[in-house]
Amino acid sequence: MKSAGLSVREDAIGNIFGRWDGSENSREAIASGSHIDAIPYAGKYDGVVGVLGAIEAIRVLRSSGFKPRRSLEVIMFTSEEPTRFGLGCLGSRALAGQAGFVDVLKKAIDIHNISFAEAAKTAGYFEVHEKLEKVALLKGAYSAFIELHIEQGPTLEKEGIPVGIVTAIAAPASLKVEYKGNGGHAGAVLMPFRNDAGLAAAELALAVEEHVLASGSLDTVGTTGVLELHPGAINSIPREAHLEIDIRDIDEKRRDMVVEKVQQSASKIAINRRVQLENFIIVNQDPPAHSGEEVVEAAVLAAQQLGLQHKLMISRAYHDSLFMARITPMAMIFVPCYRGYSHRLDEYASEEDIVGGVKVLALTLARLSLS
Amino acid sequence: MKSAGLSVREDAIGNIFGRWDGSENSREAIASGSHIDAIPYAGKYDGVVGVLGAIEAIRVLRSSGFKPRRSLEVIMFTSEEPTRFGLGCLGSRALAGQAGFVDVLKKAIDIHNISFAEAAKTAGYFEVHEKLEKVALLKGAYSAFIELHIEQGPTLEKEGIPVGIVTAIAAPASLKVEYKGNGGHAGAVLMPFRNDAGLAAAELALAVEEHVLASGSLDTVGTTGVLELHPGAINSIPREAHLEIDIRDIDEKRRDMVVEKVQQSASKIAINRRVQLENFIIVNQDPPAHSGEEVVEAAVLAAQQLGLQHKLMISRAYHDSLFMARITPMAMIFVPCYRGYSHRLDEYASEEDIVGGVKVLALTLARLSLS
Ligand SMILES: [Mn+2]
Ligand SMILES: [Mn+2]
Ligand SMILES: [Mn+2]
Ligand SMILES: [Mn+2]
Repeated sequence: MKSAGLSVREDAIGNIFGRWDGSENSREAIASGSHIDAIPYAGKYDGVVGVLGAIEAIRVLRSSGFKPRRSLEVIMFTSEEPTRFGLGCLGSRALAGQAGFVDVLKKAIDIHNISFAEAAKTAGYFEVHEKLEKVALLKGAYSAFIELHIEQGPTLEKEGIPVGIVTAIAAPASLKVEYKGNGGHAGAVLMPFRNDAGLAAAELALAVEEHVLASGSLDTVGTTGVLELHPGAINSIPREAHLEIDIRDIDEKRRDMVVEKVQQSASKIAINRRVQLENFIIVNQDPPAHSGEEVVEAAVLAAQQLGLQHKLMISRAYHDSLFMARITPMAMIFVPCYRGYSHRLDEYASEEDIVGGVKVLALTLARLSLS
Repeated sequence: MKSAGLSVREDAIGNIFGRWDGSENSREAIASGSHIDAIPYAGKYDGVVGVLGAIEAIRVLRSSGFKPRRSLEVIMFTSEEPTRFGLGCLGSRALAGQAGFVDVLKKAIDIHNISFAEAAKTAGYFEVHEKLEKVALLKGAYSAFIELHIEQGPTLEKEGIPVGIVTAIAAPASLKVEYKGNGGHAGAVLMPFRNDAGLAAAELALAVEEHVLASGSLDTVGTTGVLELHPGAINSIPREAHLEIDIRDIDEKRRDMVVEKVQQSASKIAINRRVQLENFIIVNQDPPAHSGEEVVEAAVLAAQQLGLQHKLMISRAYHDSLFMARITPMAMIFVPCYRGYSHRLDEYASEEDIVGGVKVLALTLARLSLS
């Protein structure tokens, strides 16, 4: 950001801001950005395209001689992926000042029982709980926010359209479930005397799929991405099982109904298998977000001006924009990605498509800056 | 072993032998021993009781003035548990000269793709493949082998009997299964386009239980002790799943029928879920072992001489004795353990019961030494 001429600051949780002052610097700025963290074994486009793309858009505007009225800011959000603490969008949640978020962070531990505060301290972020209030921005702190991102779905590529403009972001719910049984030696404990936490977990993973498929809508998706057994040895009956489940929909009520059914199944399975349902935690259950009309419009005009075909679409993936929507009108620009693959090593977006996306972003920022 | 006055040697794979020379040193020795390795989060009695117990038995015989005719040897077997390479009883398999075992070891890798040979080298055991032939003992190398061990089941405790004498060891089969799908983002990939390796694994774990219960015998047990998902993130559809399955029975044919059914289910599930069944490996499928009559008899006489009630029983857990049975008549002495718990941190056997077991072992060794 510095080499692009931006003045850089960082907040207490690790969000990084790079600012290009406009001539009307006292008015609310226009922001653009995304994240650069990734889940294990993921690709290098998810998030990164939106951070480097925003820096590049500003670099191009600057070198073209453009003079912004409203200031332009690049935001690199911290910890968008829920990799370590099961909490997605740490940075943007904090910026949006989510109610009760400090309490959530205080309880958050990783699989090694390291608390969020300890981990933050190790990384050089001290007193992150105490300073979190200061991280939160007021509603209206920005005039608009726009995020460039790969689609993470197959639609744009399939339809041969280079630009997607997002009008709404689907609502994700994240669950953590723990079962506990007696374990024991795989040879010595006869079947009737077992209460196998691993088999309870297997049943619950299949129940998630069943309830999602029963929702009646293609837009409902559910995934058991984490299923860990303890002690995890071939000759030991699983004594503990830990699941992390993600359920999403563009319809909040329909999604919450699935969450409720999963919870009922979790209890039933525990009773049938005589294991303890130690935990059933709804880590988050965020409402969906709708884009700001004026931001969508600016992006649509930018695409048209560039002669790039665009499609208005819904984002089923989780983004920092979901939280930025709480404090400012937002929109997202999607570019196609290979087969819709994401969160995989072979995630890929072509240079041509990324360049197209950056151009749309640059023109959108310019237009919004003058508004 | 040294402080008990034994002369100690180690073989190329890490089995450790401590010898007390008898007056008829040229005749085959009597051996006793077990292992001291453990699975993660296990107790401190499984195996350890049989190693320390054998040393103590010899110490007591020596201090009582007993003069052995046949030499007495304590064996501490290496790597009885299949923790790292999914291969149980590495040390005793090697001693028993299992056919094809070198080839199995050459293919063995741990979850970090470290080969057995590399791991052995790191631990100071060089050229373990090359030297494995020398580790193998000839049939008849020992006159008898007897292993003291906690029961790892609830029978002795429940019935209030201090000593179990094992007449047969159940036959274990170990399977490794890998499923592979396309993975993808948990939000973006709609349900009909998924092939979730984790759900395939969940179905297979439940199928193992189903086939085991359908065997018609209480003696059939099956466990999916390992189920790992990759990449293992809440917002990522599992692209790979790795299972390790243990199936045991005292009836070899009935067990092998369950293994076959599990294999059929593994294929069916792969087809239904459009995932690849990358691997279905039968890591081992060992035949059961029967104790040597003369060794059982010596143990029974020892228990009677001590006024300790005993019970002839079957071992459903895997032991080094299973492999020692291939080269020498063997038997096992069981002592009760708390609630039958094993492979858990709260595994426990009382001092009184262990002392009883060691006494039976000492008298059995004395009797066999004079035979
Ligand atoms: Mn992501
Ligand atoms: Mn992202
Ligand atoms: Mn064991
Ligand atoms: Mn053992």
